[in-house]
Amino acid sequence: MKVRIANRVQGIAPFYVMGLLARAHELEAQGRSVIHMEIGEPDFITPEPIIEAARRALAAGYTHYTPTTGLPHLREAIAGYYKDCYGVRLSPERVIVTPGASGALQLALNVLINPGDEVLVADPSYPCYRHLVRLMDGVCIMVPVGAQSAYQFTSQTISRRMSKNCVAVIIASPSNPTGTLMNAESLGEIVRMVEANGARCIVDEIYHGLVYEDKATTALTLSSECFVINSFSKYFGMTGWRLGWLVAPEPYISEVDKLAQNIFLAPPTPAQHAALAAFTPETQEELERRRTAFCIRRDYLLPELRGLGFEIPITPQGAFYLYANCERIAQDSYAFAIDILERAGVAITPGADFGSHAANEHVRFAYTTGLEKLEEGVQRLRNYLS
Amino acid sequence: MKVRIANRVQGIAPFYVMGLLARAHELEAQGRSVIHMEIGEPDFITPEPIIEAARRALAAGYTHYTPTTGLPHLREAIAGYYKDCYGVRLSPERVIVTPGASGALQLALNVLINPGDEVLVADPSYPCYRHLVRLMDGVCIMVPVGAQSAYQFTSQTISRRMSKNCVAVIIASPSNPTGTLMNAESLGEIVRMVEANGARCIVDEIYHGLVYEDKATTALTLSSECFVINSFSKYFGMTGWRLGWLVAPEPYISEVDKLAQNIFLAPPTPAQHAALAAFTPETQEELERRRTAFCIRRDYLLPELRGLGFEIPITPQGAFYLYANCERIAQDSYAFAIDILERAGVAITPGADFGSHAANEHVRFAYTTGLEKLEEGVQRLRNYLS
Repeated sequence: MKVRIANRVQGIAPFYVMGLLARAHELEAQGRSVIHMEIGEPDFITPEPIIEAARRALAAGYTHYTPTTGLPHLREAIAGYYKDCYGVRLSPERVIVTPGASGALQLALNVLINPGDEVLVADPSYPCYRHLVRLMDGVCIMVPVGAQSAYQFTSQTISRRMSKNCVAVIIASPSNPTGTLMNAESLGEIVRMVEANGARCIVDEIYHGLVYEDKATTALTLSSECFVINSFSKYFGMTGWRLGWLVAPEPYISEVDKLAQNIFLAPPTPAQHAALAAFTPETQEELERRRTAFCIRRDYLLPELRGLGFEIPITPQGAFYLYANCERIAQDSYAFAIDILERAGVAITPGADFGSHAANEHVRFAYTTGLEKLEEGVQRLRNYLS
Repeated sequence: MKVRIANRVQGIAPFYVMGLLARAHELEAQGRSVIHMEIGEPDFITPEPIIEAARRALAAGYTHYTPTTGLPHLREAIAGYYKDCYGVRLSPERVIVTPGASGALQLALNVLINPGDEVLVADPSYPCYRHLVRLMDGVCIMVPVGAQSAYQFTSQTISRRMSKNCVAVIIASPSNPTGTLMNAESLGEIVRMVEANGARCIVDEIYHGLVYEDKATTALTLSSECFVINSFSKYFGMTGWRLGWLVAPEPYISEVDKLAQNIFLAPPTPAQHAALAAFTPETQEELERRRTAFCIRRDYLLPELRGLGFEIPITPQGAFYLYANCERIAQDSYAFAIDILERAGVAITPGADFGSHAANEHVRFAYTTGLEKLEEGVQRLRNYLS
């Protein structure tokens, strides 16, 4: 039979890193050692109090569907977290619990984008932004951002690219792949400008807990008209559980709920009961220890990579990524990533996964593995480059 | 700010039953008793061996992402299940583990539908079919089906409605809301006819384990070109875990994988480890006991409802639903459902949730509650109607 793939799916590029990862696993199956610095997932397992909460929920037989928008207690706990962390009063009604931040992003884009509508996305940025916009038949306007603006939008770069067809601007702070923050002042300016143009900011705050110096500002302190995305995956160490949330502007809640009923029915129940333990002092203590560990890794890896000839002009304040210019070392970052995997046994992500602006000159290092492994990785790179 | 909801989301009707459910919870909060016969979820909690497998996985620290298409062992176990149950040899590569059948359906429709493409859906049927087709900007052709064809398509009804723009036909056997099966001969005829027209069958087999007389036939015995959807929710009693699967035709696997990476990244890890215990003899024994319990409930409820004046021309062979014509009792099934909730304390689902063909003359009863509660519900209905 003839195979027809819908255009929206054909229009999405595969992740380059997936090919690298598959090759890394092949090499490992052959007995080769690979240092993984390509993975956007903390190495730590879920904190024990969260796991314990899941065990208790299972013992109590909580295995049925929850409401589509999530357990009421969990929505309240998330709203409470905004109060404790940022001093923001938030109605739990606005918190929609989702299967990962992926689910939250899908809801926000689905509810906002008509075919042909434009969405501004930073280049470089997390690839799913542009892919999901394409899936909604939206038009993704990739806006190059560079070191001079900490790889973040400015109100100037945005205003030049905003047409009357623009319905949303996606902001990520801290950013993947760059780890850089957008400061509060700049975020405020952009939010006001975007909203004055009748568009919406979608602010991805999934790395908010993992910030090492300044404190991150949630867009919710600036406007109640933003869509804010967050997740239990990264800071809370719950990647595999698939649990995130969307804070939606009040007038969108019922439409988002209806949409969620159709596309995922409800977020996973065991994960929700587990996440109720994410905000306890015991868990928070463990998470702060991990945050410190990530900070130490960054403070080790950053100068080492600079010493090897990678250019990293901004010290990233958050997440667990270093976005490194490698043009002094290699001509093509994708070929370079393949070569260091094959010859040095170090896996990293080529810039092409994050967009096309200077992508061939950049690679992303993730410090999601222990300090000893990072040291071994640096040693391998040093040998490879010498 | 102006609120703009994307057309695809506006185009979806809310589930009527949600309003009824909210009212039922209000009444219960006031101390009223409600017999729930509206819920499409087994009352049983997840079988103990499955829960125990999850506990073991959590103790072992399995909390990270799995591959997007699922744990290789689980894909193999699912493929093995097709061999054991149906004698079908299936490559595990074709099994894509998803967050519930919702995820599987979303993948299949996303990969098949371009804007304007037509999809044939039975009327009545599960509301998410037509809603998801609308979300993909497809055109849902609702095809009325009645008791004379056991509320299933026939090759005649389909052939009359298939245009050159038709890319898919959704078949559900057993069907929600009718519980009726499509027999193997009819399924074979339809599959051949649809495929001869260059379209694809998407066959929803999520109620396959819950069949009480005949054995259900999987579409995979008939063609390797179908998309088959199944789930751990209903037969395996794992609703809240959000785990299902899609069996895709071989040429679609890589595109489905790419899509899944973007829309949900991976299915939940604890659920996948739990589901590895779903196929053990110990679990299967428990599931068979439950199947018998459902059969006993059906055999009780069906004649009682007929005795009360509901017309149920077909004895449904599967799922846990009775689709009842109530025109001898009430003029408008939606008003009727509200009235019996308010006055008799019995919650059921109005036909309007499942389409528009004779919807005002039908309601759906779910026997997802224990026999004593069903008896109490019947007694309340008897009092109400007398």
